[in-house]
Amino acid sequence: MVHTLVPSDRVETAAVYGRDGQKIGTIERLMLGKLDGTVAYAVVRCRGLLETHHYPVPWSLLKYNVARHAYEADITLDQLRSGPSELDGETFDWGDRSPAYRHPQYWTV
Amino acid sequence: MVHTLVPSDRVETAAVYGRDGQKIGTIERLMLGKLDGTVAYAVVRCRGLLETHHYPVPWSLLKYNVARHAYEADITLDQLRSGPSELDGETFDWGDRSPAYRHPQYWTV
Repeated sequence: MVHTLVPSDRVETAAVYGRDGQKIGTIERLMLGKLDGTVAYAVVRCRGLLETHHYPVPWSLLKYNVARHAYEADITLDQLRSGPSELDGETFDWGDRSPAYRHPQYWTV
Repeated sequence: MVHTLVPSDRVETAAVYGRDGQKIGTIERLMLGKLDGTVAYAVVRCRGLLETHHYPVPWSLLKYNVARHAYEADITLDQLRSGPSELDGETFDWGDRSPAYRHPQYWTV
């Protein structure tokens, strides 16, 4: 039997790979719509040499690869870098509901 | 500005109170639909004197009370007890997608 549900705490520690096979980072949390009960986007932590970025990735772009035990995102790290991110310690309005965060088109994939 | 999004890791530690004001327990995880990106239900841990139960509570029944820093469920502990639960350590198919788990009507509220 194939399960169609996944526990949130399992998602939160999962690795994310980009469309080009490069590792993007790990999911650190999901942002949920309080009213409609949907996953708006995942916050993906990406460690760099000097700083750590936190990128919003729409749930619809994430597909779980069972064999790999990781998510594959239909986006690349370069594309994420061209979008919004939060540097460690910076304030950032993760609760923002603007269309840019809700729709994958934002990244002009 | 009122945020309409909430981080999953904040939800996971929140307390849940029943319709009658009695504390039901705390949310330990959310079960998410892999494909549609919706929160199917929250798993609420309820410690008893002898054993701990884990009850599925539909997201639509949970409302966050900002002043209380907790969720209020439109259901009572007695109603949850009459529904499905998992005892600590027991196997239980949390990935079950049967209608009973998806629809609040299950509890004949």
